[in-house]
Amino acid sequence: LKELLQGLRNGQSTVDDALVALESLPFESMEFAHLDTHRAIRSGFPEVVLCQGKRTDHVVSIVKKLARHSPVLATRAEPEVYAAVVEQTPEAQYHEVARAITVGTLPTPRIDSTVMVVSAGTADVPVAEEAALTARWMGSPVDTLFDVGVAGVHRLLHHRKQLMAARILVVVAGMEGALPSVVAGLTGKPVVAVPTSVGYGAHLGGIAPLLTMLNGCAPGVVVVNIDNGFGAGYMAGLLNLLN
Amino acid sequence: LKELLQGLRNGQSTVDDALVALESLPFESMEFAHLDTHRAIRSGFPEVVLCQGKRTDHVVSIVKKLARHSPVLATRAEPEVYAAVVEQTPEAQYHEVARAITVGTLPTPRIDSTVMVVSAGTADVPVAEEAALTARWMGSPVDTLFDVGVAGVHRLLHHRKQLMAARILVVVAGMEGALPSVVAGLTGKPVVAVPTSVGYGAHLGGIAPLLTMLNGCAPGVVVVNIDNGFGAGYMAGLLNLLN
Amino acid sequence: LKELLQGLRNGQSTVDDALVALESLPFESMEFAHLDTHRAIRSGFPEVVLCQGKRTDHVVSIVKKLARHSPVLATRAEPEVYAAVVEQTPEAQYHEVARAITVGTLPTPRIDSTVMVVSAGTADVPVAEEAALTARWMGSPVDTLFDVGVAGVHRLLHHRKQLMAARILVVVAGMEGALPSVVAGLTGKPVVAVPTSVGYGAHLGGIAPLLTMLNGCAPGVVVVNIDNGFGAGYMAGLLNLLN
Amino acid sequence: LKELLQGLRNGQSTVDDALVALESLPFESMEFAHLDTHRAIRSGFPEVVLCQGKRTDHVVSIVKKLARHSPVLATRAEPEVYAAVVEQTPEAQYHEVARAITVGTLPTPRIDSTVMVVSAGTADVPVAEEAALTARWMGSPVDTLFDVGVAGVHRLLHHRKQLMAARILVVVAGMEGALPSVVAGLTGKPVVAVPTSVGYGAHLGGIAPLLTMLNGCAPGVVVVNIDNGFGAGYMAGLLNLLN
Amino acid sequence: LKELLQGLRNGQSTVDDALVALESLPFESMEFAHLDTHRAIRSGFPEVVLCQGKRTDHVVSIVKKLARHSPVLATRAEPEVYAAVVEQTPEAQYHEVARAITVGTLPTPRIDSTVMVVSAGTADVPVAEEAALTARWMGSPVDTLFDVGVAGVHRLLHHRKQLMAARILVVVAGMEGALPSVVAGLTGKPVVAVPTSVGYGAHLGGIAPLLTMLNGCAPGVVVVNIDNGFGAGYMAGLLNLLN
Amino acid sequence: LKELLQGLRNGQSTVDDALVALESLPFESMEFAHLDTHRAIRSGFPEVVLCQGKRTDHVVSIVKKLARHSPVLATRAEPEVYAAVVEQTPEAQYHEVARAITVGTLPTPRIDSTVMVVSAGTADVPVAEEAALTARWMGSPVDTLFDVGVAGVHRLLHHRKQLMAARILVVVAGMEGALPSVVAGLTGKPVVAVPTSVGYGAHLGGIAPLLTMLNGCAPGVVVVNIDNGFGAGYMAGLLNLLN
Amino acid sequence: LKELLQGLRNGQSTVDDALVALESLPFESMEFAHLDTHRAIRSGFPEVVLCQGKRTDHVVSIVKKLARHSPVLATRAEPEVYAAVVEQTPEAQYHEVARAITVGTLPTPRIDSTVMVVSAGTADVPVAEEAALTARWMGSPVDTLFDVGVAGVHRLLHHRKQLMAARILVVVAGMEGALPSVVAGLTGKPVVAVPTSVGYGAHLGGIAPLLTMLNGCAPGVVVVNIDNGFGAGYMAGLLNLLN
Amino acid sequence: LKELLQGLRNGQSTVDDALVALESLPFESMEFAHLDTHRAIRSGFPEVVLCQGKRTDHVVSIVKKLARHSPVLATRAEPEVYAAVVEQTPEAQYHEVARAITVGTLPTPRIDSTVMVVSAGTADVPVAEEAALTARWMGSPVDTLFDVGVAGVHRLLHHRKQLMAARILVVVAGMEGALPSVVAGLTGKPVVAVPTSVGYGAHLGGIAPLLTMLNGCAPGVVVVNIDNGFGAGYMAGLLNLLN
Repeated sequence: LKELLQGLRNGQSTVDDALVALESLPFESMEFAHLDTHRAIRSGFPEVVLCQGKRTDHVVSIVKKLARHSPVLATRAEPEVYAAVVEQTPEAQYHEVARAITVGTLPTPRIDSTVMVVSAGTADVPVAEEAALTARWMGSPVDTLFDVGVAGVHRLLHHRKQLMAARILVVVAGMEGALPSVVAGLTGKPVVAVPTSVGYGAHLGGIAPLLTMLNGCAPGVVVVNIDNGFGAGYMAGLLNLLN
Repeated sequence: LKELLQGLRNGQSTVDDALVALESLPFESMEFAHLDTHRAIRSGFPEVVLCQGKRTDHVVSIVKKLARHSPVLATRAEPEVYAAVVEQTPEAQYHEVARAITVGTLPTPRIDSTVMVVSAGTADVPVAEEAALTARWMGSPVDTLFDVGVAGVHRLLHHRKQLMAARILVVVAGMEGALPSVVAGLTGKPVVAVPTSVGYGAHLGGIAPLLTMLNGCAPGVVVVNIDNGFGAGYMAGLLNLLN
Repeated sequence: LKELLQGLRNGQSTVDDALVALESLPFESMEFAHLDTHRAIRSGFPEVVLCQGKRTDHVVSIVKKLARHSPVLATRAEPEVYAAVVEQTPEAQYHEVARAITVGTLPTPRIDSTVMVVSAGTADVPVAEEAALTARWMGSPVDTLFDVGVAGVHRLLHHRKQLMAARILVVVAGMEGALPSVVAGLTGKPVVAVPTSVGYGAHLGGIAPLLTMLNGCAPGVVVVNIDNGFGAGYMAGLLNLLN
Repeated sequence: LKELLQGLRNGQSTVDDALVALESLPFESMEFAHLDTHRAIRSGFPEVVLCQGKRTDHVVSIVKKLARHSPVLATRAEPEVYAAVVEQTPEAQYHEVARAITVGTLPTPRIDSTVMVVSAGTADVPVAEEAALTARWMGSPVDTLFDVGVAGVHRLLHHRKQLMAARILVVVAGMEGALPSVVAGLTGKPVVAVPTSVGYGAHLGGIAPLLTMLNGCAPGVVVVNIDNGFGAGYMAGLLNLLN
Repeated sequence: LKELLQGLRNGQSTVDDALVALESLPFESMEFAHLDTHRAIRSGFPEVVLCQGKRTDHVVSIVKKLARHSPVLATRAEPEVYAAVVEQTPEAQYHEVARAITVGTLPTPRIDSTVMVVSAGTADVPVAEEAALTARWMGSPVDTLFDVGVAGVHRLLHHRKQLMAARILVVVAGMEGALPSVVAGLTGKPVVAVPTSVGYGAHLGGIAPLLTMLNGCAPGVVVVNIDNGFGAGYMAGLLNLLN
Repeated sequence: LKELLQGLRNGQSTVDDALVALESLPFESMEFAHLDTHRAIRSGFPEVVLCQGKRTDHVVSIVKKLARHSPVLATRAEPEVYAAVVEQTPEAQYHEVARAITVGTLPTPRIDSTVMVVSAGTADVPVAEEAALTARWMGSPVDTLFDVGVAGVHRLLHHRKQLMAARILVVVAGMEGALPSVVAGLTGKPVVAVPTSVGYGAHLGGIAPLLTMLNGCAPGVVVVNIDNGFGAGYMAGLLNLLN
Repeated sequence: LKELLQGLRNGQSTVDDALVALESLPFESMEFAHLDTHRAIRSGFPEVVLCQGKRTDHVVSIVKKLARHSPVLATRAEPEVYAAVVEQTPEAQYHEVARAITVGTLPTPRIDSTVMVVSAGTADVPVAEEAALTARWMGSPVDTLFDVGVAGVHRLLHHRKQLMAARILVVVAGMEGALPSVVAGLTGKPVVAVPTSVGYGAHLGGIAPLLTMLNGCAPGVVVVNIDNGFGAGYMAGLLNLLN
Repeated sequence: LKELLQGLRNGQSTVDDALVALESLPFESMEFAHLDTHRAIRSGFPEVVLCQGKRTDHVVSIVKKLARHSPVLATRAEPEVYAAVVEQTPEAQYHEVARAITVGTLPTPRIDSTVMVVSAGTADVPVAEEAALTARWMGSPVDTLFDVGVAGVHRLLHHRKQLMAARILVVVAGMEGALPSVVAGLTGKPVVAVPTSVGYGAHLGGIAPLLTMLNGCAPGVVVVNIDNGFGAGYMAGLLNLLN
């Protein structure tokens, strides 16, 4: 901004040019989308595409445009969506369990410290993998530990050393969602908790573990939306890069 | 009414005729519907058909009957419904993104002032297009601006001049639904807010942005039902014609 | 902004001055509040104080500061709050039924067209009066009609002419909240609907009439939060001034 | 019971016989059901079969057994279920709009007074027809009036005489569900209100009109479960036969 | 209406007089209320005052005005409200358990058939008494049976003869609200079910028994709002007078 | 019953006597209550009085009457209620933390096996004590362990031997309510889980831990209502006496 | 543990060995699961597989591994899942109504006392059969009684003797869910109540009967999650084996 | 643990001593509480006392005991609780706006990087101050910025530099809760979002902003329970100390 104003002061630009420039923050306009190409400047990471809810042709176009600027991460992508994307963007890769598309190679980890992604059950693994992939895409080393829920807490105790080795923990749990509290109590590490929609009946599509995690009595737990593996992985990646 | 009573007073009609006439407000009776053909007189706009939830054969008959009296707007029409309608009413047109059928040409705008329809995301566009079509059908000029949600607020600031040029704003948003508050705060214009069902998990099918919009701290925001693009466009059209 | 930049171009100000000025949008800073004194410029109306939830000493200070810039409206003020305010701001007036404080005389109506505020029941009157006062404070003529709920719809039909004389209708209803639909159907006028917390049991503190109003089958109805007479009156005032 | 005990006293039966008889209230036992063949004695009407949620082969067997004792009404029957039933019970008839099966001819009305079934919209007709069929099956004359919702209240006023001619009113409404209140206020007649799942968004699958009906400010309205046309028709039939 | 129009036809009145008369349906206008004095004509029973939520001075004035036209019933009246009412309307009487005020003597029963009011628990008695008083005020003989909930179903079986003697049953229940189903199953009589707010925890202020009653598997049960003894008693009174 | 019928057969009683006796199951009738004095015969334990929601004079009378037949337990009794009860029933004792009244000495334990009542937090102790008192009143030895929630799971592990010594466990927890799952997983013992209203915000008055407990992934956990220490203690007492 | 430490003390093992052993509680690790093979030691019963929500190939692998250690029970298995499982584990058997797979013969009952599983309706039978199978798999004799809901309570009374013969009752009910209260009141036996998702409208997918069961006024009732036949059968099996 | 085992191996301790020591993880046992004095070892911070819901005498004793081991933080303490605490622990200090008690001096910040606590409104300040105090108590420098909600977004833009200077942001907002999304979008910094109960009507005691924050479309936002300033401050403090 200062540069811009100094150019004006120096007579290198006109008032009208300055007005235009002041308003021309970078984004790329499409008929149905404003790609936030400025985000990489603001936050250090490019915009991520949530495929769910968008028309497939829109996803295809958006991924193609974004791929010109930076590596791409597109989440909640069904196999059909990937099939359409890869036709236009041949270097796109599919991560089946995580249900995600990436374009560009995942970066070499920038740091040593690790994000650990833990799941309570086998059925929570897709959400956990989405979190793990996101953190890896941001440049974090990631470790995983699956199916260690509280019904058999000895499985968790057995892995305590592994848990203590991480800088940030992402804990993914459906059913009653009690695992993040127990993990935070055991380790004293910051925990990003992800409730999942795995359950039935009074589970209410994930509301039950969401409430459990919000009401946890162990400090050091924060929560993201139900099934939001991306959000948890993003936060963990961001925090792991803090220096 | 006065005319009717004067006719009676003058002996031009009998008491029994008057009783019948008093009760014969105009509507057209079908086995399964009472078409409110009187509405155009009361409100200036004919009855609009909500296709969703009705049997296709009923929609076909209703559109055909209404088309004899006035231009028709039928919303929430799947392509199959349009296919059935157009067989009986060949001049019917389909608006694919807005999922709506019209019969009769859209009117030349009666006024200069504009309704601006804004969407927070790409996935909200169908609801936004329904709103835009409705306002156009009522005779308003309409402008649109899509995918300018609060995660990249600079996109919105960039378009401030365009927003200020409208008389009424319709703001459509899913996810957390924060855009109407921000737009109302920025512009001071009246905002008709439409929450959408775009989201997942604790989004509760649109309840989350609905609550956000009802609790907004910026004055000048009113709300319609989730995904009710028609209702918002109708209100905006009505308000834009106020003189 | 243009002026500012031209001053810089002309050498009338320095780059640093311009930077400061660009960031010095008007608001008044207090320890616990940022008074938005800029709002009157953006929207034409000064910031309104919601007393509920704030400490009384904070309300007293905020009202006092705002009163130096412009006329004040403070809503949801208990009598005790008014008593404290009037000690520091002696010209403050209390509107008992509307539970609001004003400082400065209400403006002479700027226009002829009227806002009509309708209530379904006697117990809804305080919310209706809050709406009426707000619209008056903004410069609208206001008419009122109370206790004309749908259980005795003839009362409403009797006043149809009065309803038709207004430009904008505010309809306030607790219990089942059906009045706005009926009024919109009868008049074809734009209706701002306000659900109230008047009711019991499955009324859920106003959720029942809120849902009724959101699901109304008559077009031309928009909704604000439960008991939000201010919000409805503000919107009606804003719309009534549209030209 | 008295007879039984007198038989015992008279030595016509033994204590053990009496014990068995005391416990042998009539019902017919199947592997998966206890048919309440005693109900016709207790209430005057045989047990009605709710097909929804039951396996088709179970429905087929139950209808067949019941048809030996009394006329049958089976509700919520999809066409496939009817197809299976009619193979085993050839005299079964299907009522397509009401989605119901009957076995045996509908009785000649036992009385003169009429049950009137009113629907707010065209999409509510299936539930209304279920109510009408049930009352007819119980021996009531039934009249119907469809698509007279509150958005065009003149349609309702036009039919006031018809409404006043009934003894009991069943009023079926989706969307905001305001019709029962208005009808009860206009007529002073007892109204059995049926909310339907017709709507979207904040309609919550019928919870919105259910709450509206429970909170109605007009006395003389009672409510049944969402889409429960059978329950409303049964109650209306029962009440219409009161003497 | 016919008379009115004939007067006009005969020249006994002018067109303008007729217009006024057509609109002058009877009600009494107050600043804060439109008393529906016409209701007694429409429904046979005068308007009933719900005191809860109204200012005491409003209740006092409304009761006083209504008492000039007809007997009065005012429900949900706290003792303080009665104290204020009786000063202005000395003949007002207070029914402590039912928390209601009446003015004028309760009518001699018009009919022989009885309304039976049943309560599941001791804590449900106030709501049951409100129902009983309302039905008596409308001219029905009323019988009561309290504290016969399903935890000790033999208490209910013991009173079966008494239940069978009634024409209409009102069944009031808090906690799990199962009593109406059981009573309807036993008797085959029409049951108006009233859920109460008696309970705690997952009772949700009466939502639990409300849902129970709406989902009851015994036909012949209809439901009113939580704690709405008045509504149930009114419906029972209305039905008991059907002939 | 057999005896009764044999008496009749033998001519020792008349038919009318038998009819009366058949209907005279034991309970004691009061104006506002039917005391279920028969319950002790059916279930082995007399009726327990829930004071909450009942008028104090009713509680006083009920306790006095029940005390003539059997030992009394009255729960949810505020100190004022006890003060009134002890005036009429001087041998009544108050258990302050459990908020309960007993009349008669607690029985000597009938068995050796123990009910263990565990609480997650200090604030859950009143509910836990209600459970413990109930089980003791039924004749079970009871052990307690308080404030061993999952935030510091080592406290629980430390007491594993004590937990394993019990036959039945009652686990009381507010906040996120995760303790029952962990305890059931550790011990393999049957757990009766009690959610409490201890918490705030998204705790929803106990709904959060209730959902947690219903969705627990460890088998062997059953749940009672929020704060229902009595219900859990009763079930534990019943189960502990099973042989 | 003691043995382990004595071995260390005696020099039979090293400190490092002991550390490893202390942490080596038995479970079998797979890429996506930690099989809790230790559970049979802790609780007496091996881990049960919930198929719902897991990928079929994961279920196939888990069943195969578990079958090497102990008899297997896998619940919520669709026929396709069974088809895949039986290919890898040919001795697997399918229980169609209960939707469950077992590997290994069901044990000869270890005890005489019986678990009785009762269902309110025909549509609740699959959940009831899941409960019955689970208890049988654990070694309990099981008896069943189906379709005895409260709408025809005489069916239940008729079977009272059969109910009294059981040690533990499992009561399964959809719709309004009132059966467990009535059964507990009649029998005085411990009841494990299972709400089912059988119902519609205000049934809310089973929330209605869940709330009914939690608020039951009869003591001796505990509740499990909606449709959780497994959980109820497990608890009943556990309790029936208590000695 | 290793030390302990080596002592045993070396004969410095007996097997029984080792068993006791293995089970003697540090906590201090009181009748109503198990103080987790071990927590400081596990997590680096001592246990924090939540006063709300505990009896005052329990809080007094717990604070006194904890104060012997380490500095104390007790949250949600009403003035009366502080008054009782300070009698027994005279060095206790009260933080009135934050409603918290501390014992011991707040530590000198261990690091340079700052936690920034932002509030949307004036009424949210107490929750914000609780967060700020908690982070300070853990050794973080803290900066605050209050009343910068989205209705006047220029106030926020004005402070962008200040926001960018922090390492971690805590954003506290009631009403519609949109501020965290906007702040995260503007800054790219990790945001811990705290919904507050400030609002009315459809705000549902904080559920509305909670849902808003969970559904936010800007990545880098995590959420804690409604009004949980402590939890947010703790997480921010923990993250700020990460190295």
